[in-house]
Amino acid sequence: MKAELKPVEWKNNLVVILDQTLLPFREEYIKTSDYREVVSAIRRLAVRGAPAIGIAAAYAVAAGAHNFQGRGVLSFIKNIYRIIQALADSRPTARNLFWVLERLQKIVNEGQTVADMRRALVNEAQQIHEEQIVTDRYISQLGAKLFERGGAILTHCNAGALATGGFGTALGVIKQAYAEGKAITVIATETRPLLQGARLTAFELQKAGIPFTLITDSMAGSFMRQGKIQAVITGADRIASNGDTANKIGTYSLAVLAKEHGIPFYVAAPMSTVDLSIASGQDIIIEERPADEVTTLGGTRIVKRGVKVANPAFDMPPHEYITAIVTENGIMRGEYEKGFAKSRQ
Amino acid sequence: MKAELKPVEWKNNLVVILDQTLLPFREEYIKTSDYREVVSAIRRLAVRGAPAIGIAAAYAVAAGAHNFQGRGVLSFIKNIYRIIQALADSRPTARNLFWVLERLQKIVNEGQTVADMRRALVNEAQQIHEEQIVTDRYISQLGAKLFERGGAILTHCNAGALATGGFGTALGVIKQAYAEGKAITVIATETRPLLQGARLTAFELQKAGIPFTLITDSMAGSFMRQGKIQAVITGADRIASNGDTANKIGTYSLAVLAKEHGIPFYVAAPMSTVDLSIASGQDIIIEERPADEVTTLGGTRIVKRGVKVANPAFDMPPHEYITAIVTENGIMRGEYEKGFAKSRQ
Repeated sequence: MKAELKPVEWKNNLVVILDQTLLPFREEYIKTSDYREVVSAIRRLAVRGAPAIGIAAAYAVAAGAHNFQGRGVLSFIKNIYRIIQALADSRPTARNLFWVLERLQKIVNEGQTVADMRRALVNEAQQIHEEQIVTDRYISQLGAKLFERGGAILTHCNAGALATGGFGTALGVIKQAYAEGKAITVIATETRPLLQGARLTAFELQKAGIPFTLITDSMAGSFMRQGKIQAVITGADRIASNGDTANKIGTYSLAVLAKEHGIPFYVAAPMSTVDLSIASGQDIIIEERPADEVTTLGGTRIVKRGVKVANPAFDMPPHEYITAIVTENGIMRGEYEKGFAKSRQ
Repeated sequence: MKAELKPVEWKNNLVVILDQTLLPFREEYIKTSDYREVVSAIRRLAVRGAPAIGIAAAYAVAAGAHNFQGRGVLSFIKNIYRIIQALADSRPTARNLFWVLERLQKIVNEGQTVADMRRALVNEAQQIHEEQIVTDRYISQLGAKLFERGGAILTHCNAGALATGGFGTALGVIKQAYAEGKAITVIATETRPLLQGARLTAFELQKAGIPFTLITDSMAGSFMRQGKIQAVITGADRIASNGDTANKIGTYSLAVLAKEHGIPFYVAAPMSTVDLSIASGQDIIIEERPADEVTTLGGTRIVKRGVKVANPAFDMPPHEYITAIVTENGIMRGEYEKGFAKSRQ
């Protein structure tokens, strides 16, 4: 089966979401016109990955617009505002979600008739998705140049097709480099607590036929020490102006370990992940998720009741640990603030 | 219930092993006079922790000696040799196992009659266990001095009563410091793949009433960055002459991260863990364990079949990442080769 994985789609005026909590063992889809189901899917990580969350949210707004049953422009606008607000409250860290909602909000702010806004919102959602597909290709092709010399590339969590709705960012770079015949192999961290590496990245790499080894998160340092890793590349959930990058919990440790071992640490993400409104990572809100993600697995309890657990979903390598950031606009090595500003022109 | 946890005991001439694979949910004991059952218990980590493995092996030899049904000294000696060999083949990394077997081997090498050797082997096994209990107390009391200023102490895997058959080493230090009224809290890493932190250290800390937070292994770096960890202390499975220390996979990453954040990284272990026959960690054999420890979690399969997995049980912080090593002979800060030699006098 050569079909791309489609974590989120717009089909017959419904939002179709591949339920990633069931992967890799079951491929089941949520089909809905109800934004509340999309909010729930985002919250419980049925759809995850910063770009894919944004696209799912865009389609949720589109579905809300398409299925609006009320009367009058004001009622329509209020309805869309309510949907946008609910989606904005679903998860706090990924920048793309807010970037998408701002684009849709703008249409409503400037719209005149229900029919126009409805059409424009659906078009904009599809446009956002299409842009992501193009962006992923740019990122992948640009990023692949980083791996001319081949070697074992470590990636954390999942920044593949499942995370973006396109070709992937960090994993897109890896897939592209492999497709170009570069002599690469992959080390995939399992990524506790929710095992996006073991479940999703492994699934994508198996489908792509790329050789890889799965490790627990705790093995990365030892592998670096032994010369078994030549580069690290991850996605991002939000990037501050100065390059500080929020990404899946564990990314910070990997960045520090990479630096200690003289291994390049790369971030690959679309410009929609860059938040120019914040100066540094200090201003990024890190989501704390439910304890049962750590204390249970597939319904099986692995820790006794009464144990206090921390479960921050993200952490934040500061820019000084990042060798380069790859966006659709190019590869930036330091001086990110200038680079991002230039990209915008 | 205030009783100490007893991972291994000698009772009515049987080896009694608490099956730690079932903790924290079930407390079941293996009672056997058959060394092959002890080998199996060691292999599948029903008994684990370098000192506890050594004690279990000692009692397995004692049981073999006690239950010897054959005739003649030569037959007895051959039988004990076979038992020692089987135990030596059970797990390669922990030094204590070999240190114990060498002590028992010596008795057989120098013994004259079956009755004498039998008595001496049983006595020596019990002696080894009693020494460990005393040693743990020394280590704990010495080590507690490291935490005068209190703070949050991170420990990895389990180096408590369950790992030693006594009070514990790294976790013994923590328990002792807490008992002395020092203002400490604990951060326990869950310790993938086999979750000794989530299952065993959490269990011991709950029993001891010490406040702690459980985290995934991947969170440690971020916690350090945020100033949420003031020290790290772990046990050891084998320490080379120069202080290079083999311990549970993930320890190396923690040592690097601690150094990067200016946080002291301590190792607590009995002198029986020190292997003066090897100059550096390069000569320590790292056990590679079965893939299904990584591909399953709490009995649930989390990875598709056909995925290549690495599962080294240990890694090795070199001495330059270690702030101090605590043994029953004192606290050593660097110059470990000299320190260990002095300790032996």
